[in-house]
Amino acid sequence: MITLSSDFGSPYPAAMKGVVLQRTDARLVDVSHTFPRQDVRAAAFWLREILPYFPPATHLVVVDPGVGTDRAAIAVEAGEHVLVGPDNGVLLPAARELAGAADDADAEAATSAEADAIRVHEIGYEDAASSTFHGRDVFAPAAAAVHESWAADRTVPDAVDGLGAVTPTDEFVDLELPEPAIEGDAVRCEVLVVDDFGNAITNVPGYVLESLDEVRVDGRAVPAVETFAEVPEGQWLATVGSHGNVELDVNRGRGDEAFGVEAGDSVRLEL
Amino acid sequence: MITLSSDFGSPYPAAMKGVVLQRTDARLVDVSHTFPRQDVRAAAFWLREILPYFPPATHLVVVDPGVGTDRAAIAVEAGEHVLVGPDNGVLLPAARELAGAADDADAEAATSAEADAIRVHEIGYEDAASSTFHGRDVFAPAAAAVHESWAADRTVPDAVDGLGAVTPTDEFVDLELPEPAIEGDAVRCEVLVVDDFGNAITNVPGYVLESLDEVRVDGRAVPAVETFAEVPEGQWLATVGSHGNVELDVNRGRGDEAFGVEAGDSVRLEL
Amino acid sequence: MITLSSDFGSPYPAAMKGVVLQRTDARLVDVSHTFPRQDVRAAAFWLREILPYFPPATHLVVVDPGVGTDRAAIAVEAGEHVLVGPDNGVLLPAARELAGAADDADAEAATSAEADAIRVHEIGYEDAASSTFHGRDVFAPAAAAVHESWAADRTVPDAVDGLGAVTPTDEFVDLELPEPAIEGDAVRCEVLVVDDFGNAITNVPGYVLESLDEVRVDGRAVPAVETFAEVPEGQWLATVGSHGNVELDVNRGRGDEAFGVEAGDSVRLEL
Repeated sequence: MITLSSDFGSPYPAAMKGVVLQRTDARLVDVSHTFPRQDVRAAAFWLREILPYFPPATHLVVVDPGVGTDRAAIAVEAGEHVLVGPDNGVLLPAARELAGAADDADAEAATSAEADAIRVHEIGYEDAASSTFHGRDVFAPAAAAVHESWAADRTVPDAVDGLGAVTPTDEFVDLELPEPAIEGDAVRCEVLVVDDFGNAITNVPGYVLESLDEVRVDGRAVPAVETFAEVPEGQWLATVGSHGNVELDVNRGRGDEAFGVEAGDSVRLEL
Repeated sequence: MITLSSDFGSPYPAAMKGVVLQRTDARLVDVSHTFPRQDVRAAAFWLREILPYFPPATHLVVVDPGVGTDRAAIAVEAGEHVLVGPDNGVLLPAARELAGAADDADAEAATSAEADAIRVHEIGYEDAASSTFHGRDVFAPAAAAVHESWAADRTVPDAVDGLGAVTPTDEFVDLELPEPAIEGDAVRCEVLVVDDFGNAITNVPGYVLESLDEVRVDGRAVPAVETFAEVPEGQWLATVGSHGNVELDVNRGRGDEAFGVEAGDSVRLEL
Repeated sequence: MITLSSDFGSPYPAAMKGVVLQRTDARLVDVSHTFPRQDVRAAAFWLREILPYFPPATHLVVVDPGVGTDRAAIAVEAGEHVLVGPDNGVLLPAARELAGAADDADAEAATSAEADAIRVHEIGYEDAASSTFHGRDVFAPAAAAVHESWAADRTVPDAVDGLGAVTPTDEFVDLELPEPAIEGDAVRCEVLVVDDFGNAITNVPGYVLESLDEVRVDGRAVPAVETFAEVPEGQWLATVGSHGNVELDVNRGRGDEAFGVEAGDSVRLEL
């Protein structure tokens, strides 16, 4: 199974699928092709939340503001999964989560163990066909080749036909999603992404809302609820989303508009 | 085969697919993930129109304004098909149509026979992982389990691992799409949905347009045509859509804007 | 494998998929269902660019402003591929490309040889179920029947059950995408499509930018670059897109808005 993620909209992902299907019979599953344009961090967040729900798979990811520069292409081994994409950090949070999930099955996973459990390989592409559409000309053939090898025996191949050599590396661009900061009784947090519903998803872990009836968001009192249905239509609220983080919403409305926030904005949460 | 329908946009449906694919190798086919947000009736209409074109399948549907409340999760047997989703009526119009279609193959189907032919089961989910994303944590694992059982021998399972027991029930939320009302020479009808083209699809059966050249819509004379091409570009028209209902359109334009209507609006049609 | 392309948005393509899956177990791959509404030329461009990346397949295409008129339904043999859709030219540029690609494998392909290599068949549909949704009632069953025959022995069937006879024809609507015109030192070109990124893709072959640092677009000096990253954010540029044509873009912005152009507009390019 190969999952596909990008910020390409339509119809460019179809060219990637054609290239992949020239090289493998694997099942293809779209994660999303409408990730926010060139927003590496938003994509990294969504992939970390969603990919762990999949059975062992190859994950092809192309959110790549550096296309055409000399940034590397990489494959990352992570537990029973392998990820293929640009070396800009977009794969790392999901890879750590997938590697940790694999560890969890055996024993207590420590953060360092998780970090150890991922293995990064650089994929040479000096023979690639274009410098403008690496999704089609680099990452798609690379993902197909990696998938064939990974599905066979959980190895990454030594080379990708038509691209170049694949070599283990310790040098790669890392990415950590930001952590909230304690400020006295309050938490200085950040809106990581806004979803299609308009929910503003923060980086605050959900447990902080436990046993609270209300929080203050940038000074404004907001009910803390378990489900949207607890408040009237149009009422704003704070709740724990399906990803386990605090999110700022409106029942049957758009939280981002009501709270006046967008991805990347800082918010002060008084508990 | 499992079809998937929701109002989730992107990327939440991918989490549902991951969960399903952990549990079954079934083919997955998206019906839509852009149904109007939390509009049970619009989704019920579309499912009734589209699902009968599919071969025998399990249909996973999540349009669920009551998520987080104690509304039940149900599976509905309907002819060669089975549907899984929230107990809010969204499955019922399609289920009746699918059950009727199965009856039609054998004999004359009466409305009562169709109603008899559906069987509803409540799916317990007291062990579910979250209260905010039942699409992923309740309906996806339920649909996978129901599918495995249904594909094997056309039965619904007694329980879903990790969720709870599955028990037949006669109590469920029903939904009938509204019927038009005769008002002398006119019909008081309703716009059920507006499609992506801007066509305003009413609840009036298409045969009422037979042999008519013109109808009056809220007092305004409008040509009744068989195909858009019969009127000039930009001209409004009434025609019978692919679903068999009267729809209000504009040739190469948006009918909803031209007629000033949206889903749920009442319209007077003089024939 | 059957690819699907249309301008239907959602959920109408699902009805087509249901009909196809009643008739074949083929893998289905979406190319796009958001092609610009009723824009035959834009769809023809995208199909010509994308379909050659696929392995041998049946390509179902429904961009069909003439639905409901007496325009024919056709199947087009093109190398290892076969295309099914309306007789309005939308299939022809891709078919020629696919036929040429097949020739290229053996020998030098001349344009005339490419033209010879496509074979067009008219698909009768006098028994079709509706006059408004030919995607579902004509092209979907036709594509399924053509696919079964084509996958078996690279033939087109003599008839499609429930539709009508399939007969070779030399009469079909052709479509050539427009060529740029030389005007002294300049090229009068045309914006063929605008992609989801806002890139204005012209009909000028990319080699004209070779060794140039700058071009003038309607009199305005614009850097000619290999990659977006060569210019600052917000800067306009001309580059060679993944399709091999000159496109007018803005780094991290929308080229169509910056240059004030849309599909079909004429642009003067001074080299």
